Amino acid sequence: MIDAKKIWQDVQAIRKKAPLVHNITNYVVMNTTANALLCIGASPVMAHALEEVEEMVGMAAALGGALVINIGTLSQKWIESMAVAMRAAQKRSVPIVFDPVGAGATTLRTQVCHQLLGEVSPTILRGNASEIMALLDATVQTRGVDSSRASSRAKEAAATAATLYRCVVCVSGEEDIITDGKTVRTVRNGHAMMSRVTGLGCTATALIGAFAAVNAHPLDAAAHGMAVMGIAGEIAAAKAQGPGTLQLHFYDALYRLSAQDIEKRLR
Amino acid sequence: MIDAKKIWQDVQAIRKKAPLVHNITNYVVMNTTANALLCIGASPVMAHALEEVEEMVGMAAALGGALVINIGTLSQKWIESMAVAMRAAQKRSVPIVFDPVGAGATTLRTQVCHQLLGEVSPTILRGNASEIMALLDATVQTRGVDSSRASSRAKEAAATAATLYRCVVCVSGEEDIITDGKTVRTVRNGHAMMSRVTGLGCTATALIGAFAAVNAHPLDAAAHGMAVMGIAGEIAAAKAQGPGTLQLHFYDALYRLSAQDIEKRLR
Amino acid sequence: MIDAKKIWQDVQAIRKKAPLVHNITNYVVMNTTANALLCIGASPVMAHALEEVEEMVGMAAALGGALVINIGTLSQKWIESMAVAMRAAQKRSVPIVFDPVGAGATTLRTQVCHQLLGEVSPTILRGNASEIMALLDATVQTRGVDSSRASSRAKEAAATAATLYRCVVCVSGEEDIITDGKTVRTVRNGHAMMSRVTGLGCTATALIGAFAAVNAHPLDAAAHGMAVMGIAGEIAAAKAQGPGTLQLHFYDALYRLSAQDIEKRLR
Repeated sequence: MIDAKKIWQDVQAIRKKAPLVHNITNYVVMNTTANALLCIGASPVMAHALEEVEEMVGMAAALGGALVINIGTLSQKWIESMAVAMRAAQKRSVPIVFDPVGAGATTLRTQVCHQLLGEVSPTILRGNASEIMALLDATVQTRGVDSSRASSRAKEAAATAATLYRCVVCVSGEEDIITDGKTVRTVRNGHAMMSRVTGLGCTATALIGAFAAVNAHPLDAAAHGMAVMGIAGEIAAAKAQGPGTLQLHFYDALYRLSAQDIEKRLR
Repeated sequence: MIDAKKIWQDVQAIRKKAPLVHNITNYVVMNTTANALLCIGASPVMAHALEEVEEMVGMAAALGGALVINIGTLSQKWIESMAVAMRAAQKRSVPIVFDPVGAGATTLRTQVCHQLLGEVSPTILRGNASEIMALLDATVQTRGVDSSRASSRAKEAAATAATLYRCVVCVSGEEDIITDGKTVRTVRNGHAMMSRVTGLGCTATALIGAFAAVNAHPLDAAAHGMAVMGIAGEIAAAKAQGPGTLQLHFYDALYRLSAQDIEKRLR
Repeated sequence: MIDAKKIWQDVQAIRKKAPLVHNITNYVVMNTTANALLCIGASPVMAHALEEVEEMVGMAAALGGALVINIGTLSQKWIESMAVAMRAAQKRSVPIVFDPVGAGATTLRTQVCHQLLGEVSPTILRGNASEIMALLDATVQTRGVDSSRASSRAKEAAATAATLYRCVVCVSGEEDIITDGKTVRTVRNGHAMMSRVTGLGCTATALIGAFAAVNAHPLDAAAHGMAVMGIAGEIAAAKAQGPGTLQLHFYDALYRLSAQDIEKRLR
């Protein structure tokens, strides 16, 4: 289903084109996601002022880039900027990757997701299972809970969200599930220690932004991004003594990633 | 006074319960304190929007967590959110750890501390000697200055602050002093190079949040947090070639910390 | 032209005096520039609230420090604080180092630079060639484009900007150009992999702040800062397997920097 050669083609395209990835993201991960984007070969930019987000999206449009929206540390002004940026991206056909960090944890976060996603469909929506579940209405959530296994629940939630928000949905977990509501791709790469480094979920979202910039098929872009994320994480974990050293080696692994790494490790 | 076995019990409790530590903290250390909390086994969350802080504190209450307030990069909106979060935490008996970063450096910082701490007593107040001194009124400060040695001055300031703010006070330094105004605990772990990594004081405060979540005795929670901080710093310094590598190994050391590490190194 | 011994004198002065470097900078690099300043021996402080920036600049004045202004993640409130801080620094003769991150990328950024720099001349203005070009008026930019080689264009832009803003201008690139409009200094240190670590340009600006605090000659301060930046980068690159490990070793190299390192590597 997922083809190692096609992943490698995307990586090469990112390295060659250095697509502009415009991030409106949370304070916690601004530095780390910028570093991950640089290591894979993209050109990250962080800009959130209402006065400039539309223009920055225009630059992403002109240069063949992407917009990444991440609600991890919200405040009112930023929500406005996110809405303006998403509208501008939709208008100019810039791929939008949306990360509903903490949806379900507070009413504000859930509502902001409903508001933003209700107005503009993202290209790809990436979150963990509980975040994606939180974006479904109560009926659906209940139905989801009836399912007997976590993985099948996540698959059902992903498919429902894909239909509801008319986008590709990526539910990350031990097994990543990527679906457009019909076709399903799964990625089984990654390492348990990755959950002990802050913001690696947000990093996955940012990397998917780079893949969406060079690959017109959102299902493939999301799957390829998650595969690269997991493979780099595995390479890093093999060298790490803990989450601190894992993070560094993760960056190095993204930077040094080869066709062979992907071929050998893709699951 | 400080029992290595009890520190280890707390570490195990954190690893088992993964307490939610809600941080309203400064931009500089959001990433690094989140990583330290993940490495010790806690679940960090960063949320500062006025619309959601009360709800997030409610979640910390429901899940047996803690609230960490750090004034390192203040602005008006954040001060309001801190006040609301502290009131909510008091009401719901969520332990509050407060870090008065830069108190004394500017009038704003000193005043904000007086305002916030005047309304709600934290569970634990952690700062360096000059920050804690700045929170005492002028008379007390002058008296403090009369003392002949730095350490005795710090002890006096800590005791006075503990009485004034009705909380446990932790003054960190070469020797950390932890007191509730009556009993005094001292921790002598740590390494000089730690002062060359930004935000390790803030990291100590965040870690104490995790200990306060699992240990109902604030004096012990603060002492155990400082001991773990210092011990992980020593382990890291032994492997480091400078502050850059120290920071990584510090995370790894927190993640790998064993009963033997504590037993062997506690001073 | 650039004397290794004088660079070393500045490094020793920074280590001895630990000058206060007050940064109003972008979210992405707050942590990393604070770490770089700590590693070289300075005392970084981050403060942006309108209510405290003037007082913090006053402290930098009293302690012989510097002000670093970096527009990387702008918003309206911060622009006001930057203006107030720059006026206070001018009044109290605190050196100002200004980084026009992303000037030219959006109208907001270019206009804010014109506004801030139009009112207060910085001591040193540091950016890459496209940022510095964006600060020149259209006539000059066009003239710049006529030049046949990138390096001569950068030199012309630097000289024009130095005259226009009455300051030392540092255009960083493969060859760094530092000029006051008359004298030109060039620094050829550094490593290509440094461009794959986010915020190393901002780090250069912050380090120049430390050098400007101890060296009254802005042309020398900027050149020495850039040389140390490049030399530490080379030392780090020699040990690194990618951008992740490069960043750590960069910090360690700043911390361990010796007269011999400078003597041997200065180009």
